[in-house]
Amino acid sequence: MAGSSFGNIFKMATWGESHGKGTGVVVDGCPAGLALDEARIQAYLDRRKPGQTKYSTPRKEEDTVEILSGIFEGKTTGTPISMAVYNKTQRSGDYSAIAECYRPGHADYTFDQKYGFRDYRGGGRSSGRETIGRVAAGAVAEEILKELGINLYAYTKSICGITIDENKALRENIIKSPLFMPDLEASEKAEEALLKRMKEQNSAGGIIECIVTGMPAGIGEPVFEKLDANIAKAVMSIGAVKGVEIGAGFAAAASSGSVNNDSFYNDKNKGIIKKTNNAGGILGGISDGSDITIRAAIKPTPSIAGMQHTVNKAGENIDIEIKGRHDPVIVPRAVVVVETMVAAVILDMLMVSMTSRLDLMKKFFGF
Amino acid sequence: MAGSSFGNIFKMATWGESHGKGTGVVVDGCPAGLALDEARIQAYLDRRKPGQTKYSTPRKEEDTVEILSGIFEGKTTGTPISMAVYNKTQRSGDYSAIAECYRPGHADYTFDQKYGFRDYRGGGRSSGRETIGRVAAGAVAEEILKELGINLYAYTKSICGITIDENKALRENIIKSPLFMPDLEASEKAEEALLKRMKEQNSAGGIIECIVTGMPAGIGEPVFEKLDANIAKAVMSIGAVKGVEIGAGFAAAASSGSVNNDSFYNDKNKGIIKKTNNAGGILGGISDGSDITIRAAIKPTPSIAGMQHTVNKAGENIDIEIKGRHDPVIVPRAVVVVETMVAAVILDMLMVSMTSRLDLMKKFFGF
Amino acid sequence: MAGSSFGNIFKMATWGESHGKGTGVVVDGCPAGLALDEARIQAYLDRRKPGQTKYSTPRKEEDTVEILSGIFEGKTTGTPISMAVYNKTQRSGDYSAIAECYRPGHADYTFDQKYGFRDYRGGGRSSGRETIGRVAAGAVAEEILKELGINLYAYTKSICGITIDENKALRENIIKSPLFMPDLEASEKAEEALLKRMKEQNSAGGIIECIVTGMPAGIGEPVFEKLDANIAKAVMSIGAVKGVEIGAGFAAAASSGSVNNDSFYNDKNKGIIKKTNNAGGILGGISDGSDITIRAAIKPTPSIAGMQHTVNKAGENIDIEIKGRHDPVIVPRAVVVVETMVAAVILDMLMVSMTSRLDLMKKFFGF
Amino acid sequence: MAGSSFGNIFKMATWGESHGKGTGVVVDGCPAGLALDEARIQAYLDRRKPGQTKYSTPRKEEDTVEILSGIFEGKTTGTPISMAVYNKTQRSGDYSAIAECYRPGHADYTFDQKYGFRDYRGGGRSSGRETIGRVAAGAVAEEILKELGINLYAYTKSICGITIDENKALRENIIKSPLFMPDLEASEKAEEALLKRMKEQNSAGGIIECIVTGMPAGIGEPVFEKLDANIAKAVMSIGAVKGVEIGAGFAAAASSGSVNNDSFYNDKNKGIIKKTNNAGGILGGISDGSDITIRAAIKPTPSIAGMQHTVNKAGENIDIEIKGRHDPVIVPRAVVVVETMVAAVILDMLMVSMTSRLDLMKKFFGF
Repeated sequence: MAGSSFGNIFKMATWGESHGKGTGVVVDGCPAGLALDEARIQAYLDRRKPGQTKYSTPRKEEDTVEILSGIFEGKTTGTPISMAVYNKTQRSGDYSAIAECYRPGHADYTFDQKYGFRDYRGGGRSSGRETIGRVAAGAVAEEILKELGINLYAYTKSICGITIDENKALRENIIKSPLFMPDLEASEKAEEALLKRMKEQNSAGGIIECIVTGMPAGIGEPVFEKLDANIAKAVMSIGAVKGVEIGAGFAAAASSGSVNNDSFYNDKNKGIIKKTNNAGGILGGISDGSDITIRAAIKPTPSIAGMQHTVNKAGENIDIEIKGRHDPVIVPRAVVVVETMVAAVILDMLMVSMTSRLDLMKKFFGF
Repeated sequence: MAGSSFGNIFKMATWGESHGKGTGVVVDGCPAGLALDEARIQAYLDRRKPGQTKYSTPRKEEDTVEILSGIFEGKTTGTPISMAVYNKTQRSGDYSAIAECYRPGHADYTFDQKYGFRDYRGGGRSSGRETIGRVAAGAVAEEILKELGINLYAYTKSICGITIDENKALRENIIKSPLFMPDLEASEKAEEALLKRMKEQNSAGGIIECIVTGMPAGIGEPVFEKLDANIAKAVMSIGAVKGVEIGAGFAAAASSGSVNNDSFYNDKNKGIIKKTNNAGGILGGISDGSDITIRAAIKPTPSIAGMQHTVNKAGENIDIEIKGRHDPVIVPRAVVVVETMVAAVILDMLMVSMTSRLDLMKKFFGF
Repeated sequence: MAGSSFGNIFKMATWGESHGKGTGVVVDGCPAGLALDEARIQAYLDRRKPGQTKYSTPRKEEDTVEILSGIFEGKTTGTPISMAVYNKTQRSGDYSAIAECYRPGHADYTFDQKYGFRDYRGGGRSSGRETIGRVAAGAVAEEILKELGINLYAYTKSICGITIDENKALRENIIKSPLFMPDLEASEKAEEALLKRMKEQNSAGGIIECIVTGMPAGIGEPVFEKLDANIAKAVMSIGAVKGVEIGAGFAAAASSGSVNNDSFYNDKNKGIIKKTNNAGGILGGISDGSDITIRAAIKPTPSIAGMQHTVNKAGENIDIEIKGRHDPVIVPRAVVVVETMVAAVILDMLMVSMTSRLDLMKKFFGF
Repeated sequence: MAGSSFGNIFKMATWGESHGKGTGVVVDGCPAGLALDEARIQAYLDRRKPGQTKYSTPRKEEDTVEILSGIFEGKTTGTPISMAVYNKTQRSGDYSAIAECYRPGHADYTFDQKYGFRDYRGGGRSSGRETIGRVAAGAVAEEILKELGINLYAYTKSICGITIDENKALRENIIKSPLFMPDLEASEKAEEALLKRMKEQNSAGGIIECIVTGMPAGIGEPVFEKLDANIAKAVMSIGAVKGVEIGAGFAAAASSGSVNNDSFYNDKNKGIIKKTNNAGGILGGISDGSDITIRAAIKPTPSIAGMQHTVNKAGENIDIEIKGRHDPVIVPRAVVVVETMVAAVILDMLMVSMTSRLDLMKKFFGF
């Protein structure tokens, strides 16, 4: 099917393989009138660029975005925005090893089972470079949300099992940490743990948290198109994500009603608020006006230099060691991917919600 | 939007409020030729029926399903299957309390914010009775999957923080436990904990696990339409679910590559298998032929008899006690909901995957 | 696939066979706040009811609609509106003839080819009774459009090749004509021609025209989701329709640019208008503010009493005479079907268009 | 909304403006294993290239397609195929005239009404160059159909009101005629009529016919997703199309049941066929195994050199003469656009139909 297409009104269709001519996206359904240029998109893409710290692959990837359509006189026209990141050099290394074997934890085997063969160069379509298109499209969504008073931020909550202390976490610390952890003490400990893993030719996973502020209440649809359901799909669709939580998440399962229920309170200045936010800003699939809080579990990078058992294309049981420069942890680079995917969902559901009430529709059309 | 519609090829559209004329579903896209009658559907619906143990509401709900279309001479015709569960008695109690206040943990406030008003009788559309339509539709999907060698089962993994011991869990125990827990020792402990909660006028949550056996490899689409992404949406769309995991899930975040990676192995009898299953049967969004394992975190029932603070429609800060007969825990009744929603996704993705390869399409059409 | 589901935001899913338990529809995506009851829907359904004149089948079909969900205190709640028309009597006639043969011009053969078998009673799902669900759903759309200042009307333009004279056509005549022809002279001539056909055990087709007034400019999307493209699909999806035109339609093909182009004109009182309307109110797939004009070609009723050659299920060449009470022409009964399908499309596209401009979105959300 | 996205399983998302950096398409949902390279796609694009005869604009447009993804070792991989046609020279002429006025018959006014402003250079997104993406995507579909024994061809049926004589039409003549008319006598007469129009600074429209051969019976879904309904949408979505017919089309409206019904006949060699094909190969929305026949009415080119009345952006009534090199008729260049759009629909519906029967699904999955 059309696995690379996403969204109801704000749609994106991504394309591209790791070592092909490039990667990109067509954004279809962006409203007219947003001031947009390559620099605004590039700022998001740069956050997923490798080679910035010793905790990501030292590969050089410039990943310069080019906008091919949909902008006129500096503003979006309402028609499709095509964006491409061309690969500067067609890498033509020796892929004979990877071509013939099924790397554990990777999609080599499942792609072959599904399609009969695969573009094995650098992981092909299942490479992390696939996220370039998503981030570019989600960046457009996030820029629109800003105009509507909705802001997102995301950060690393945990790496190697070392988790931030909420009391020590400061939003401004996120960019000070090479791991994008807002608690700098935890960040240092995580760095140490990570260096140990790297020395052991092993890899690490972690948890990313994303917060949405300024959400109006009433966004999201009951039943199947719940706001959290769509967020869960968007986040779980990111490679390496194995779990998604909203609000208290799995902790809620062990809690009790009297503790987990968030009391409503009418505050003189803020209006109706909740005193706690175990719901993560969503009740019955619809935003309640509190911050939306999402967590994603990221598995350890499957590419490790150590010896592994597996099977090759001929069906022989073999041992492999995966050479090359790999990220010991992808969590920091995935932070912006989670953030922009959530942005794309929020915008799409916001658009859809404009038709929930006849009185507001009448007002919109001048009646 | 159309929040009550789900699926690409195998579609369902559900309808109905808790205290209205009934609830139901239209299944659009069921293949022709499945032997189907009301009894086959009823067996699934009966698993979510209340009043079977002391751990669910003692309300009497017969919930007898009627098939209104799409069956001829005992078989599905390929055209829409309309199924309805009519409410026997139009309950017309006194809803003045619930009508005017926003119950914590419920969707009262968000529905009012979204639509301007709501059908407050018994929770209206946000009631657990909404799941009747899903289960009926998902039951059809599960019956088709059986014909294709794919079987699902689900059970309670944890309640009140008491979790089953995998070594003591037996599939045949599921129906022996009033809580649908396959480890009967854990089940007894959970019962005790639950009784304590009930005595305290409090409620409990828990974790449901669902296993899919017999999955062929190659099902699911790369990028956005990953099998796990669609499962995550389907499961998170069930009321009270706050988290979803696949395979090792959140535990993977703290693991390492060398531990979390599942080695492939070509077994003389079984063919290519994985020695472990941290991936939960899905790699790169595509099934790998192992069992698919899913976990859902269910929050504690928000309706509790104890005193709670909240806000009423007029914006006044008030205290409420929710009267009535409520489930102290919804986990056991939600087991079949998770199972059938997963079935609906698996079938839909299976259908979609039939077009992945030109050679198989040619064979299908006789070339 | 899900052939019985329609729409992007305003969705419907219809169900039911001619001689089954009933037919109906689930409308998903109706805005909250529309005053609605069964009487408003019934008025539309009554326009397609047979037995009102001698030019339709004398079969008695009461077709009383029942609303099962989605209404509270007289208004739509924003959640699915389930509507059903139950068949009063399970007709259990002798279908052996129709069961075994493929009637020319009907879907018997194609259903068998597609599904392997079919519900042959009264045409099953391919019966004209399928339209009950569409009309009920489209009626809801049309009622909403009225609130937005958009009105639709439709009528018979031609029957048996006898076409109305635009100069003699009056909108108020439509209901005075048993054939819903607004030119009463043409209506009488068409009646005569029709009676002749009936005497000859033959049938007739015709053309239906639908007009949409009060359309705001700017509705419809460029490229694939053009307003006229969606109308064409909706109208062509009605059984027996073999052609669809917008504005000048096929006549435009033989015209010239200088004649076919509609000049714009800024009128002191009306604002920017077009002096002619060969475009039928749509330019580049987007409404231009003029009336939208659509025509549908309806083929002659395929059920005729005269002798016909065909093939039976066993593959034998046979002759058949179709007994029973059939409409000699379905055009008058199809008028409301065309009108309500167009209404459903217009509303859906109107909803979608609310997100075309960032400035209007900002205003909607209070920025 | 996402107006530039099309299809259920075989999806395309097109992008690009007339005078921007280029135009292109992402095809999402193409099966793996089709041998494909740029030359195969270019052959289709060349058929819509201008400047080949005196009846199309003498503008030079090379329109060389580049495939950016989705192909590996000469075959489609099953992942998105991104194709682009870059504009060689950024045309930067003087657009002040066109920028400020609303050309009759064009989308200038409606784009401004919808989006608030528009890319006016060469028509922007509403230019005929938009079809490049469709044709490239549809070409992929048509190449797959060939592998399944389904072939399409299309031609000009009528221009300036001069229509081919079926008895004199030969398929091999299509490419011999500069207007793609298979009746060379009619072609000559049409050329003469066209030259006269050009001399008069006027333009012409016409009718395109498309034939699909080798269709298996059973393709298309009942009710809304009828094969003809989807074809009607696809064809009507092409700029300048004002009408669509299937089979006898509008002529059926004036016919009678005894004449219009196609008798089935079991032929010793060919199996069950229809003796006539007024149905155009589709009964009840499902293919019957006969050729599918479609006609599209194309309006005269709205860009004419003669004087026209219109309104400018400031709302003033003005007169304009449209300078520049325009096609006096777009019909011949649109032939391949109709053909490839129909191909895209047929393939998509073919894919969807693979799930119609449980027995065939079981066989597909090895049961």
